[in-house]
Amino acid sequence: MSHAEPLYPALADEPTSPEGWLEAFRDVRAVTEQLCIPLETEDYVIQSMDDVSPPKWHLAHVTWFFEAFLLKPFVKGYVSQNDSYDYLFNSYYETHSSPFPRPRRGLLSRPTVADVYRYRHYVDEAMELLLCNAPSEHSRAIAERVCLGIHHEQQHQELLAMDIKHILAQNPLRPIYSKRLKVPPTRRPAPMGWRTYEGGLLTIGLEPDSEAFAFDNERPAHRQYLEPFELATRPVTNQEYIRFMEQGGYQDPALWLSDGWHLIREKGWTAPLYWVRDGERWYHFTLTGLLPVDTAAPVCHVSFYEADAFARWAGGRLPTEAEWEHAAVNTRDLNGNFADSGYLQPVATEAGTVRNPQDPPLQMFGDVWEWTGSAYRPYPGFRTLSGSLGEYNGKFMSGQMVLRGGCCATPASHVRPTYRNFFPPSARWAFSGFRLAREATGEHCRDSFSQSAV
Amino acid sequence: MSHAEPLYPALADEPTSPEGWLEAFRDVRAVTEQLCIPLETEDYVIQSMDDVSPPKWHLAHVTWFFEAFLLKPFVKGYVSQNDSYDYLFNSYYETHSSPFPRPRRGLLSRPTVADVYRYRHYVDEAMELLLCNAPSEHSRAIAERVCLGIHHEQQHQELLAMDIKHILAQNPLRPIYSKRLKVPPTRRPAPMGWRTYEGGLLTIGLEPDSEAFAFDNERPAHRQYLEPFELATRPVTNQEYIRFMEQGGYQDPALWLSDGWHLIREKGWTAPLYWVRDGERWYHFTLTGLLPVDTAAPVCHVSFYEADAFARWAGGRLPTEAEWEHAAVNTRDLNGNFADSGYLQPVATEAGTVRNPQDPPLQMFGDVWEWTGSAYRPYPGFRTLSGSLGEYNGKFMSGQMVLRGGCCATPASHVRPTYRNFFPPSARWAFSGFRLAREATGEHCRDSFSQSAV
Amino acid sequence: MSHAEPLYPALADEPTSPEGWLEAFRDVRAVTEQLCIPLETEDYVIQSMDDVSPPKWHLAHVTWFFEAFLLKPFVKGYVSQNDSYDYLFNSYYETHSSPFPRPRRGLLSRPTVADVYRYRHYVDEAMELLLCNAPSEHSRAIAERVCLGIHHEQQHQELLAMDIKHILAQNPLRPIYSKRLKVPPTRRPAPMGWRTYEGGLLTIGLEPDSEAFAFDNERPAHRQYLEPFELATRPVTNQEYIRFMEQGGYQDPALWLSDGWHLIREKGWTAPLYWVRDGERWYHFTLTGLLPVDTAAPVCHVSFYEADAFARWAGGRLPTEAEWEHAAVNTRDLNGNFADSGYLQPVATEAGTVRNPQDPPLQMFGDVWEWTGSAYRPYPGFRTLSGSLGEYNGKFMSGQMVLRGGCCATPASHVRPTYRNFFPPSARWAFSGFRLAREATGEHCRDSFSQSAV
Amino acid sequence: MSHAEPLYPALADEPTSPEGWLEAFRDVRAVTEQLCIPLETEDYVIQSMDDVSPPKWHLAHVTWFFEAFLLKPFVKGYVSQNDSYDYLFNSYYETHSSPFPRPRRGLLSRPTVADVYRYRHYVDEAMELLLCNAPSEHSRAIAERVCLGIHHEQQHQELLAMDIKHILAQNPLRPIYSKRLKVPPTRRPAPMGWRTYEGGLLTIGLEPDSEAFAFDNERPAHRQYLEPFELATRPVTNQEYIRFMEQGGYQDPALWLSDGWHLIREKGWTAPLYWVRDGERWYHFTLTGLLPVDTAAPVCHVSFYEADAFARWAGGRLPTEAEWEHAAVNTRDLNGNFADSGYLQPVATEAGTVRNPQDPPLQMFGDVWEWTGSAYRPYPGFRTLSGSLGEYNGKFMSGQMVLRGGCCATPASHVRPTYRNFFPPSARWAFSGFRLAREATGEHCRDSFSQSAV
Repeated sequence: MSHAEPLYPALADEPTSPEGWLEAFRDVRAVTEQLCIPLETEDYVIQSMDDVSPPKWHLAHVTWFFEAFLLKPFVKGYVSQNDSYDYLFNSYYETHSSPFPRPRRGLLSRPTVADVYRYRHYVDEAMELLLCNAPSEHSRAIAERVCLGIHHEQQHQELLAMDIKHILAQNPLRPIYSKRLKVPPTRRPAPMGWRTYEGGLLTIGLEPDSEAFAFDNERPAHRQYLEPFELATRPVTNQEYIRFMEQGGYQDPALWLSDGWHLIREKGWTAPLYWVRDGERWYHFTLTGLLPVDTAAPVCHVSFYEADAFARWAGGRLPTEAEWEHAAVNTRDLNGNFADSGYLQPVATEAGTVRNPQDPPLQMFGDVWEWTGSAYRPYPGFRTLSGSLGEYNGKFMSGQMVLRGGCCATPASHVRPTYRNFFPPSARWAFSGFRLAREATGEHCRDSFSQSAV
Repeated sequence: MSHAEPLYPALADEPTSPEGWLEAFRDVRAVTEQLCIPLETEDYVIQSMDDVSPPKWHLAHVTWFFEAFLLKPFVKGYVSQNDSYDYLFNSYYETHSSPFPRPRRGLLSRPTVADVYRYRHYVDEAMELLLCNAPSEHSRAIAERVCLGIHHEQQHQELLAMDIKHILAQNPLRPIYSKRLKVPPTRRPAPMGWRTYEGGLLTIGLEPDSEAFAFDNERPAHRQYLEPFELATRPVTNQEYIRFMEQGGYQDPALWLSDGWHLIREKGWTAPLYWVRDGERWYHFTLTGLLPVDTAAPVCHVSFYEADAFARWAGGRLPTEAEWEHAAVNTRDLNGNFADSGYLQPVATEAGTVRNPQDPPLQMFGDVWEWTGSAYRPYPGFRTLSGSLGEYNGKFMSGQMVLRGGCCATPASHVRPTYRNFFPPSARWAFSGFRLAREATGEHCRDSFSQSAV
Repeated sequence: MSHAEPLYPALADEPTSPEGWLEAFRDVRAVTEQLCIPLETEDYVIQSMDDVSPPKWHLAHVTWFFEAFLLKPFVKGYVSQNDSYDYLFNSYYETHSSPFPRPRRGLLSRPTVADVYRYRHYVDEAMELLLCNAPSEHSRAIAERVCLGIHHEQQHQELLAMDIKHILAQNPLRPIYSKRLKVPPTRRPAPMGWRTYEGGLLTIGLEPDSEAFAFDNERPAHRQYLEPFELATRPVTNQEYIRFMEQGGYQDPALWLSDGWHLIREKGWTAPLYWVRDGERWYHFTLTGLLPVDTAAPVCHVSFYEADAFARWAGGRLPTEAEWEHAAVNTRDLNGNFADSGYLQPVATEAGTVRNPQDPPLQMFGDVWEWTGSAYRPYPGFRTLSGSLGEYNGKFMSGQMVLRGGCCATPASHVRPTYRNFFPPSARWAFSGFRLAREATGEHCRDSFSQSAV
Repeated sequence: MSHAEPLYPALADEPTSPEGWLEAFRDVRAVTEQLCIPLETEDYVIQSMDDVSPPKWHLAHVTWFFEAFLLKPFVKGYVSQNDSYDYLFNSYYETHSSPFPRPRRGLLSRPTVADVYRYRHYVDEAMELLLCNAPSEHSRAIAERVCLGIHHEQQHQELLAMDIKHILAQNPLRPIYSKRLKVPPTRRPAPMGWRTYEGGLLTIGLEPDSEAFAFDNERPAHRQYLEPFELATRPVTNQEYIRFMEQGGYQDPALWLSDGWHLIREKGWTAPLYWVRDGERWYHFTLTGLLPVDTAAPVCHVSFYEADAFARWAGGRLPTEAEWEHAAVNTRDLNGNFADSGYLQPVATEAGTVRNPQDPPLQMFGDVWEWTGSAYRPYPGFRTLSGSLGEYNGKFMSGQMVLRGGCCATPASHVRPTYRNFFPPSARWAFSGFRLAREATGEHCRDSFSQSAV
């Protein structure tokens, strides 16, 4: 969104003082509300599928997080605005209390949107007081939880963008979220090349001496041995994906994992989510309405199964998360098309920027979350946070695949090379794309791709 | 609702002039909007189950009816405010156009509530113009369709009350629709007696020479032969129903139709819809919040299966719709607790008012729709309206049971002794109760009931 | 089946002596087993949908009926062969004991087919002893229950034919039940005419002084008033039904009940059950394999919804069950293509046999069960049998439509003009067809049909 | 089964001559049929859930494998016994032809069991001819495919045992598969200790120069770095699992993966599959009927979720498949309770056999498949077989977890230390148990377990 003020604050340097935390807290809270400015009251209420939450639920839930994990434990005599919110806006912390059933979130007209904003501001005030007068014996615990709450709210900022898009897409009127989003430049597709990595015994995950914030699932750092591999210099584009579609990709069972093949046939999928064909041309629904598909931009809103089938078709594979992280750590450049860029959609990279084999790959960060070939499982020696916060990540470690790198709806300050996102392999409503990898042993993708190598 | 102005206009005398139609049109349109005054914007959006429609959908759909069946056919050059509304707000007229899928009505945040009101007023203005300047060659057709549209909107006024109640009931906050509804008086339960009818060859359905409005399904009048029968002098009360529950009514398969038995076990039903037990006491959710069950009031929100099981338990049966109509036609008093009374819930009758066997039964009209033992099927010689309007009633004539008499949410001017309402036997969200019948041949209900006979 | 001995014994004259009952018992038991002679052991085990029972279940269940309702109550010291059979082979008598879940009947490999036959013969022996030595104080009760058990077993003989057909039809190998069934003659389609009835106040149901066996649901006789009506002289044929299909019958929502329209779209129905198109030609699966559809034969394996839609398309309607019964009672000729004929499929009637308007309609009995327009509800004054036998019919009186006349798989001695069969409106695996009716007031079917009038 | 002749032939040394292959082929074919000797014809037909196949389907499918992949490609003029079998008995090779839908396998009464045996013998004869006269230019290909077919049939031998158990378990009669199975000895529970492994950079997967048969998913050998870890000296026993149940394991959400918690609540699981409580005592259904649970034997028929929750409760975790394989490779002793032992159920190990920390862990092979913490994904550099055989393993590499070591129903000659079995995390009908692991860094399980350490 082209706002005068930068929408997303930088969180790169973690605050070291209470004032610093207060400012960071205020910043992240403000961003969430700015994201909702274009919404009508009615938009806040809808739950378009079980995975989606109504926007007002997000607004309340991130607020509940601060109330449940900071105000109640650390503010003596804190009085909730409404006790029932503890039940309504607990997302899934089973050990905290039995949460309101997720698929029924869209049945709640009350609290109203105005009520939810009142709740936010009530909690904001109490949080400001707490942060200005934190009891010194708890200052470390408070800083840690505020930090977690801020990153948690950033996650929901991305979910808000995903969910709003999904909600509006259900509507045959094709409503536009905002006309003030930035318009992507028209660019020629960049050629795809391969960057070779030697592999070896490498350290994966957040270094133990790192002071920076990271989620529990990025720890502990541990060693992994990687064989030599090659990684594509950019994600797969819409143009390439259209070729896959045109050449029968969705009709050939040999390309698909068994679960994926049954899924696409049951659902009738023949293109990414939000794509609509009009004669010869493909359009897709975006937060600025129905637009022609930009062939040079990374393909987006595909499931793991589709990414995996494309890779098989192209003679490659998806990278493992360790391969991806190894390449990303060495990239050293975390810039990218994040939510802060104001597009809220993936954008084509500038062509020709990879000039020699030593250059790092492009678009590792931002644009699209990249499906990896790794199932989401704990790192060796993983341990969860204690208490209810222990439910944050660990309990989702089955049935999901890892994605890396952040996307056009992720706050820039939110991601790291070690950041592990995860979704079920069937999910498509995230801004999810992918990048190819292959063995470095001379195994080559089909001609169309090797021709385009730098 | 205790409004200064009477909320529901009298429609008893059908207008004979364009001005009369205009006034009737304005009145019914105003009532619908008055019903929605207590709602928050968010309440308008929710669809709490497939059978329920979001309130804003009702507001728009009844408007669409006037647009589709009057403005478009009879106003030359009429321009819709939004062409897509024809698709969104067509309820089920398959021959008109393929309707928007019913279970997805709750996924539409747009048009907004404000948009819908704008749509209403746009159509209202066009309708006023049409009614003031009706082309004389179509004046009869227009009057007929306006009349149908008015009764159609009244049906949706009742649906609005039912649906709003169901929507608010999902919410653990137990929101109150309106605190301005009238509070029912506290009354002693009236004793139940039996009124005997001799039967014979009777005319059922609307007399052919009747000028009054009636739906197609009430026609044609035809003869039916009835054996002598007895009809209870009032509907079954909450007190009686609680006795059924306490004596194991929901646990004894011998009392239930097979479909009903499987349904209550699958759903875990052990009480009417909206009932909540708190220790020894039963409460139920109403449009004024959670209230103690009034034992003297008619039981409400029961399915046909529950009504049928209770009747079997009590040694009686449900009346057929012909029996009910025969008794009602002779009642001659259509007064009752309708929406106009301002309670929007059933109310106990005044005790002791049935003094001798010749007195007509009480509460035949209003309070609760009364399940009959008759499946909803066409009368001999039934024919539908022509064109899309032919889909109004006829196509629902399978899988449903007839209910009679109107309820506390029905506009008083909307019902007649011949009026046939219908719901699937499993439905409970209508204000549905029942009254017992029995053979006149000396067959008697269990003691508890015969003792209470007058 | 062209057996030397007549397969189905005559039961028309109800036995008056113990010896008579014994012979009737033996006869019906033998027929059931003869029906199963062509089966492979494996065929006995399959449950092809929830409504179907494995053949060995039928064999055991009808046996259990005699054991539970005769041997256990009336034979002192009777010892069951296997106590668990009481649980496994109780069909739905909830008040007897909780029955084994119907949809799981196909998961039972044991008792084996041989075990089931042993069970049959064990019970047969005990029954023979009981019938030869019936305690005189119970002789009336025993005769009544044997009689019910015999008619019950006849019902399952028809179900066996229906279920075996459905089971074999699932198999892509298209197995043939028996090659020894009789081959229907090739006949020209009979023209369809109309027979007029004057109506009036008529008696429906079994006369109270009738000594003959009838189910509880045929009682009591009661008066109904019928308007004049006309009834088609024969059922609708395959040829006529194909015309309905070719002229878009399955594509026009105006012809269908709402439930029916949604059903055919959800299921993708575009023809009767078991029909398969091969180029220009229609084939259907029969108990003698895949055969070309005989255009002159009555259409079969259609749901109520399809019958109803056809009738609307043809400008007629389905008869009510009272109309059908009135016509049937006057027919006085119960001959027809029943199971005893040995076809086990509907057969075209001989053309030209209706010569004048006073002649009774053809094919009222046998060939196909005829869907009526009447929902299956109790007659006025209906009462069930006492005890568990009271669950025989009454508890199914919701959600079903009445069919009349018997079919090609019904034992001839099993039906009567008053016989009420019933199925859900969506059911198609019964041998169900239909016959048109219309008002006698000059209302006429579309040309194609009135042309064919006699 | 205590047969005079050893039931399961040794396949350890792969044949080097055509005669050797012929003998191996004959042996494996004979075993499959011996497994079915105790079955009644009816048992062969049942499909008790979608995952289960009717035994006759297994018998035919493994036969189809030889026909489709050997006889048709390599025997000139080979004529199938029945062309439709190619459709019916293709399991899932989508690229071969569209397979008959898996959930409908239980609807096929034909081909009969006798037909299936005829099919087997027809194919056996053709295979014998082929193996005796293999064209020399294809001898390598034929040997490879016969070898694959033999191992494929062994997999189905295990599936037969699993499926027969599941089929019989549905039946309230609790039928016994065979009374000739060996009775497990009564043993005191062995104490559980920990064996420490130093980890390091290790080779996982089948060595590239290995001549032995292995599935594609075990290749290629590759390096993995393992941190030091400890592995339990035996699997978790029923006694330990009962303690978990008694101490509220199934009631505490903090112990469970989110998917698992929702699953156990939806299904109502509170014990392993086949367990039945009778007062204070636990029983379980086995292939020899309902037996008391042997507390000293390994727990079996638990899902991955249950294994994972137990491990969290016990303060440990599941081993990764690499950890397991590393320990197993060093065990060097592949003996164990396999199908050949004749128990077809897990058996307690002999107590006290682990005497010092250098001893290898017990029961790594046989008894129960051990759930690992590793998702089933391809090894680096994995490639599938070409053609339809490429669908053998690779396409199942999502949504499943790896199990290792074989079980009491696996032919002894079928497993290897590198063997990767896989099931969805919710599956319980396999003979699946688990063994604990933990970090070697001083992390310790709860007292109850460390006390029992050697």
